[in-house]
Amino acid sequence: MGTIVLLMCVMIFIPEVAYGSSNWQYGAILDAGSSSTKLKIYRWPPRTSLDSVLDIKQVGESEKHSPGISDYVDKLGNISNYIGGMIERVKEIIPKNVHSTTSLYLLATAGLRVLPEDDARSLMNAIRNVLQNKTLNPFVFNPSNVRILSGEEEGVFAWITINYLKDYFGSDRPQSQAVGVLEMGGGSTQIVFLPDGPLLANMFQVRIAGKRYSLYAHSYLFYGQDYMIFRIGRYIIQQNPQSSSHQNPCMLTGDTTTMLYMGATKTFIGEGNPSKCLTIINSFLKSAADDMCYPKPCAIGRTYQPSIGTDNFYAIAAFTYAPRSLGTVDSSGKLNMSRLNETAFNYCQKSLTDATTNTSISEKYGSAYCLMGLYIPALLSEAYGFTSETQKITLIRKIKDISVDWTLGAIVYETEVFETKCGTSAGHISYPDICFINILLLLTYLMVR
Amino acid sequence: MGTIVLLMCVMIFIPEVAYGSSNWQYGAILDAGSSSTKLKIYRWPPRTSLDSVLDIKQVGESEKHSPGISDYVDKLGNISNYIGGMIERVKEIIPKNVHSTTSLYLLATAGLRVLPEDDARSLMNAIRNVLQNKTLNPFVFNPSNVRILSGEEEGVFAWITINYLKDYFGSDRPQSQAVGVLEMGGGSTQIVFLPDGPLLANMFQVRIAGKRYSLYAHSYLFYGQDYMIFRIGRYIIQQNPQSSSHQNPCMLTGDTTTMLYMGATKTFIGEGNPSKCLTIINSFLKSAADDMCYPKPCAIGRTYQPSIGTDNFYAIAAFTYAPRSLGTVDSSGKLNMSRLNETAFNYCQKSLTDATTNTSISEKYGSAYCLMGLYIPALLSEAYGFTSETQKITLIRKIKDISVDWTLGAIVYETEVFETKCGTSAGHISYPDICFINILLLLTYLMVR
Repeated sequence: MGTIVLLMCVMIFIPEVAYGSSNWQYGAILDAGSSSTKLKIYRWPPRTSLDSVLDIKQVGESEKHSPGISDYVDKLGNISNYIGGMIERVKEIIPKNVHSTTSLYLLATAGLRVLPEDDARSLMNAIRNVLQNKTLNPFVFNPSNVRILSGEEEGVFAWITINYLKDYFGSDRPQSQAVGVLEMGGGSTQIVFLPDGPLLANMFQVRIAGKRYSLYAHSYLFYGQDYMIFRIGRYIIQQNPQSSSHQNPCMLTGDTTTMLYMGATKTFIGEGNPSKCLTIINSFLKSAADDMCYPKPCAIGRTYQPSIGTDNFYAIAAFTYAPRSLGTVDSSGKLNMSRLNETAFNYCQKSLTDATTNTSISEKYGSAYCLMGLYIPALLSEAYGFTSETQKITLIRKIKDISVDWTLGAIVYETEVFETKCGTSAGHISYPDICFINILLLLTYLMVR
Repeated sequence: MGTIVLLMCVMIFIPEVAYGSSNWQYGAILDAGSSSTKLKIYRWPPRTSLDSVLDIKQVGESEKHSPGISDYVDKLGNISNYIGGMIERVKEIIPKNVHSTTSLYLLATAGLRVLPEDDARSLMNAIRNVLQNKTLNPFVFNPSNVRILSGEEEGVFAWITINYLKDYFGSDRPQSQAVGVLEMGGGSTQIVFLPDGPLLANMFQVRIAGKRYSLYAHSYLFYGQDYMIFRIGRYIIQQNPQSSSHQNPCMLTGDTTTMLYMGATKTFIGEGNPSKCLTIINSFLKSAADDMCYPKPCAIGRTYQPSIGTDNFYAIAAFTYAPRSLGTVDSSGKLNMSRLNETAFNYCQKSLTDATTNTSISEKYGSAYCLMGLYIPALLSEAYGFTSETQKITLIRKIKDISVDWTLGAIVYETEVFETKCGTSAGHISYPDICFINILLLLTYLMVR
């Protein structure tokens, strides 16, 4: 009887003993954006169950390091210096005894997706070469830890972040309670959700806490905030390429700016004409003709998107700025899309001075809020298929006081990759190991008894 | 000492004892194509290691059941009869004692991807309702077992099939030894490969034998063999919609056919003009203008595709028919693309009688080989970026005497989903279980000693 009690103790307590809290696991991400790189460090307890999610906490974050890594494409020799400083910071935060079992990632986003393919390849390989140096980088090195995220990965990781922070994973809540994600950065915009019907293309499968999710994920490169401003400028220039000065209907009157176009400096003068601006925006959002769209339905161009169904969506990053500044978000964060459209129409007809005097709006963003105030409702309704009266979209920046971006989701995803190896990855003790320890302990007990 | 020997025996042999060959696991797939449904049954031994691939064998296959499941979209009540017969066959082949732990899948392909979204949803839900009936279907039911595969899944599963049959998985062979896949069915065509550089969109990740593969995968719906014939016909009609009779440059002289177009019967008369035919084909393959293509590079339209790099490709299904019939494949199966192009140009100028007299070519396919002989090289070079002198493409139908299609890959993929659950899925004995059995046996031995 005593033996059986001991056996039960061994079965229950061995994992706890082996996994003391001194056995934290760590992961570090260098988030390489278009204009800067930022370090984030996460920590979590060792995995003890295969069907639950890990409790991952951010334990460190750096300031933004400017310029962005893409600036090094023609000075590859300087990458070591650029990255070296950030790795020193990682070494300080993560205890030395786990350096050799901790993964370090450098993951790049939209800014690098616009580089020519060969440049991007050289840059990534140069970074890999630097990180292969064990003196500089004592952390786990794996070539795939250094890469440009696909736009879909970026969106999917944001989806994971949000649903992770909403405690969706590991619960038995139905699929309809997962939250879809609308994300917009400077370069690209992403839409990710779990469709409630057939998913015929643009599928991204993830497995979290032992469950598989077949997500619809699409990223529209060049549909981010900064690139839309650029594209509208380019469109206007192309209507009259000889002229050096152009009226820009998406800019407030009294605002001027310049743009380099094929080697020449072009000046834009704010015209404050929302109807004309919206016509240009809509030309970028057109859906393909019926006989050019397959599988159906199409969102922008020939891009397939299943109906958004009954999901709720969280809109993050550049989706939040203009609607908030224009006061079209209710107290619970719900976006009032038709009000945004109306408000933006009026706002766009103000002068820059009127728009920024005695308001929270800075001159720098005065015109951008006009454009984004028109673009966001157009994108959501014309392209994605939300109705203008939708109650489904909530704007958020933080959940549980944690910034909502893709990095946390990337770590959740990567720890799930470990999970599929049943705890055999570096730093984990696997079940067969526990089994062996159990038997040895039991044996020892019985032999000395 | 004797105890330690016993312990070692227990550690080594318990899995074998628990996993006798009477413990085969099974999976059944109803492959629901556009014109018929076909049953395939696979069998594999229980999993004993997490980092190796299972040895999966096909043990049963049915004739094709016509018509295709999409014919039932307006007679949902008859689905039970249609599927019931096939399930009876599954019951006969799979031993009764494992019915309740065997998964049955109904996976549909391109034919169902062209249905209106609501019709497709109703049809899938009706099938799910039928399969929920335990009397009719004693096998494991899970709503996601019944679905329309995305085009990318279809391509990825074919990629898995091929690389599985080539023993790529579980080996330590470098990524460059994986084989890319070019697949073409009646409705769609798929391209899937492991890029050797950045992968910026259209990523499909799979995990097999504990390793992750980030595949580029894209499916072009309406670019399959039958739909290309249809689209070219439609294109010709649209040039002169009033006429009831049209010259078709992609058909051999002496051949005629009809097509229903917006309620009217149109007649096509073979013109045998390969240059004109190729002009139409190329209009479907155009890449987007540089400023509409992001991320770059683009294949067809705005569809991103990274460079094909150094991979070898296997081309299967409808990629094999015309090149073989036109004699442009060498003895090792390598496609000679420039010769195919030349040969097709000459072939297209033959009359149907000349093309089919004293040759292996039937009247039914006479004109199709002209079109496909022009279309295949155009697709491979203009859209995908192979050079016309490429030595990378091998045409195959079977590997190790097993037909190369997506179904085997789907089963490999699904068994890997089980794997990520560490053997806890139905029918598996998990490591913790083995651990417990070990300890109990040891304990029993020691107590009775």
